[in-house]
Amino acid sequence: MELENAKKELLQLQERMSAYNHAMGLISYDGETTAPKGTAQNRAHSLGILSEITYQLSTGKDTVALLEYLDAHKDELTQKEKRMVYLLIKDIRFMQKIPMEEYVAYQKLTVESQDAWYNAKMNDDFASFEPYLEKIFDYQKRFAHYAAPDMDPYDYWLNEYEPGLSRRVCDEFFATLRQRIVPLIKACGEKDQVSDDCLKGDFSEDKQEQLALWLMETMGLDRQHVGLSTTEHPFTTSLGSHLDERITTHYQREDVSSSLFSVVHEGGHALYDTGSDGDLAYTVLDGGVSMGIHESQSRFYENILGRSKGFIRFLFPKLQELFPDEMRPYTWQDVYRAVNRVQPSLIRTEADEVTYSLHVMIRYEIEKRVMAGELSVHELPCAWNKMYKEYLGVDVPNDRQGVLQDSHWSFGAIGYFPSYALGSAYGAQFMAKMKESVDVDAALAQGDFAPINAWNKEHIWHFGSLLTPREILDSALGAPFDPAYYLRYLEEKCRDVYGLDY
Amino acid sequence: MELENAKKELLQLQERMSAYNHAMGLISYDGETTAPKGTAQNRAHSLGILSEITYQLSTGKDTVALLEYLDAHKDELTQKEKRMVYLLIKDIRFMQKIPMEEYVAYQKLTVESQDAWYNAKMNDDFASFEPYLEKIFDYQKRFAHYAAPDMDPYDYWLNEYEPGLSRRVCDEFFATLRQRIVPLIKACGEKDQVSDDCLKGDFSEDKQEQLALWLMETMGLDRQHVGLSTTEHPFTTSLGSHLDERITTHYQREDVSSSLFSVVHEGGHALYDTGSDGDLAYTVLDGGVSMGIHESQSRFYENILGRSKGFIRFLFPKLQELFPDEMRPYTWQDVYRAVNRVQPSLIRTEADEVTYSLHVMIRYEIEKRVMAGELSVHELPCAWNKMYKEYLGVDVPNDRQGVLQDSHWSFGAIGYFPSYALGSAYGAQFMAKMKESVDVDAALAQGDFAPINAWNKEHIWHFGSLLTPREILDSALGAPFDPAYYLRYLEEKCRDVYGLDY
Repeated sequence: MELENAKKELLQLQERMSAYNHAMGLISYDGETTAPKGTAQNRAHSLGILSEITYQLSTGKDTVALLEYLDAHKDELTQKEKRMVYLLIKDIRFMQKIPMEEYVAYQKLTVESQDAWYNAKMNDDFASFEPYLEKIFDYQKRFAHYAAPDMDPYDYWLNEYEPGLSRRVCDEFFATLRQRIVPLIKACGEKDQVSDDCLKGDFSEDKQEQLALWLMETMGLDRQHVGLSTTEHPFTTSLGSHLDERITTHYQREDVSSSLFSVVHEGGHALYDTGSDGDLAYTVLDGGVSMGIHESQSRFYENILGRSKGFIRFLFPKLQELFPDEMRPYTWQDVYRAVNRVQPSLIRTEADEVTYSLHVMIRYEIEKRVMAGELSVHELPCAWNKMYKEYLGVDVPNDRQGVLQDSHWSFGAIGYFPSYALGSAYGAQFMAKMKESVDVDAALAQGDFAPINAWNKEHIWHFGSLLTPREILDSALGAPFDPAYYLRYLEEKCRDVYGLDY
Repeated sequence: MELENAKKELLQLQERMSAYNHAMGLISYDGETTAPKGTAQNRAHSLGILSEITYQLSTGKDTVALLEYLDAHKDELTQKEKRMVYLLIKDIRFMQKIPMEEYVAYQKLTVESQDAWYNAKMNDDFASFEPYLEKIFDYQKRFAHYAAPDMDPYDYWLNEYEPGLSRRVCDEFFATLRQRIVPLIKACGEKDQVSDDCLKGDFSEDKQEQLALWLMETMGLDRQHVGLSTTEHPFTTSLGSHLDERITTHYQREDVSSSLFSVVHEGGHALYDTGSDGDLAYTVLDGGVSMGIHESQSRFYENILGRSKGFIRFLFPKLQELFPDEMRPYTWQDVYRAVNRVQPSLIRTEADEVTYSLHVMIRYEIEKRVMAGELSVHELPCAWNKMYKEYLGVDVPNDRQGVLQDSHWSFGAIGYFPSYALGSAYGAQFMAKMKESVDVDAALAQGDFAPINAWNKEHIWHFGSLLTPREILDSALGAPFDPAYYLRYLEEKCRDVYGLDY
């Protein structure tokens, strides 16, 4: 009987946590979408207080006693309950090791630093963001040290974003990619240039928004539960549960592809989150399990599906309808080639699939060096520009298009970037497996995402966070993860677009 | 020393409450502005939990002990602390009398009923809203009974929205108004009709938004701290403190005056809230003290200033700039007459100043009868239509333009409407007083709100909720409240616009 009560309390605890997550997530989301520009301090004030309250809720005696009791009765729990207890205890153990004042101060800092990042980016003024970023790196080093004193702090955070990840795994993974991607870029560069003129022009925000909403419908997103807003940097967030999901985009008037692929990317995240089984709502099992699996879905939709021949052929009439003047001179083949053009460039989120991993590697190397104390935050812009020259051969004209381009560090996400590359590689292997039972090409040609979504839901989404990333990979793939799928996929795409003899 | 600690805890308690208010207010605001349409239940879930938590915070042993201790040491408190303790104890005494389950269920109900109201209005389907509204009236009767068993439940709520208000006071006030307003409307009706053609046309949302933002600047609103969004029904809300204020509007493509006066009205609320002294932020003294005083400010800006000759003359060139085709045939005098046209109509928020109070009286009479059990919710549409015929001589064609037009009942605001009429009357008397020291006409002619805002800030805004409504009236007016100012003001306006010999 006591166990039954404890099980009920376990659910109530998670319901409370999800209400706080709803509140705090919405305050942040509002700050990025709607709030007047001078309100960051007011938000920081409220978030500071709420994070103090949630800290106390998570680490309070009652909570700890409840979870320890349940942990001691592990064998009498269902699979779901067991996993809930495991994840909650993991979080609590972390929070218990962080002094509350530091935890609260850090929450406030990230609100203010997001604002500082935004202003720094707008004004191309890294110096104004530098003191915030220094503090963030310091906190993350210190928190990692509190949490796992015997572990390298960067390894700690890599493993947090993608359980199992470490510098060793990353080094090996990126070396494998680099070995085949660098010559691939070179080979494409030696062929005739592919033009992306068909993506450039004057595309009104209004029509781009229509396109975004059409894409959401086409992908099978339920607009009753998935909202669209605009922000400086596109992202996806769940509010309270997977029943209220928000994606954001960023319209560029002169380039139709920017928002287009942002929407498909964030839409992939949203499909994953909203695909959780209904009974996972308001528990820690709701929504995606790790950033690696999350990015495997977002980048799967953005690239493997979104930049495929079949989908572009299906999409083209819609582009013609919305932008008749801009599209008149072109064919769907022009668009297909343009969105798959391999071209070293400045901005990660707009990079092609082949050069993309190099953008990620630069961030990985920089994070690794800052976390190891080998590089100071002050030196970041210089190191950034140097590596862009070395890895991608491009000159960075300003910090706005350089080190300030991404928002991640401003909210403390250090160790996140590698999951983008890892997720891309997972996705390619998912696709190979999916094709064994789904006629993906036929579905895409008709813009029919239903059979594709059904496969992902069955093998990935519906679990929420019930399975570990490794368990999902094992059960969905039936084979170990192998980046060769991803490399073969990239090479095949280049063969097709550039006529390489690879 | 214990007292000093208690004073600190008093501030901390209020900071916590304001963080919860921020969170819960934002979840509601998001529901009305941005959230996907299918997410009301998810919001209700989170709000239910958060209101349970705030209920426990407010009525918990520690809070009650703290406030009772401070109350016992009243004489050692500052004026501000004394007022904080008074207001907090008042709230707690109320909440202690409401069973927590009912309180939480009611919070959830109002989220769902706002959604139900919105859909009912969109579909002109009162029946779908009726069960929610029945429950809301039932709850408000029951809550009033719990709180003040010896008091008439409607008197209880009237007094909550405007301390000192009761059916007796309202009956007398409205009788005074009706006695002079009804013949005034008749007299205007016998004169040549005033045309409002200059307000009708095709006004793009985009330009109307530009106008709204220009109005906000002109009124002296600080856009760094005051945001603008669109909703079905315009409103104003503070999030966490007066440092983050939001107003909303509703653009009607065919009528430029609708959003124009909504913005000036909500802008008046926002000026009041954001005019609180800085050190009141994160306390219960932050923001306006009562709905009556609040409406005195909003309707002061909307009507007494916004529809004045001086302001319309100043505004007209901006209208010409934004809407050159629409304004070409007209002069500023045409606009002045049009916005002051007396014309019995269907929609309260778009009514002229003279007929406005009759719209309020209808709602007051209906609320009074439903609360007394003399009228059922089911009979509301019929009673509504009958009274519109009787009071205003208009036929209500559907519930969308009738009983479903206002959102107030859907969020439980019963007893709120009289404050609109009362506030209008306060405002007229404030103006008479202000004119003793400020050259209002000269300021308006130049669109210079600074001296007007300065007077309001000094006499009304900066106090926040430190003074009672009565204290504000007494100190600002230096004389008892007298509705004759309001009636004289309306008669003078009609003399000017209609050439009456009143």
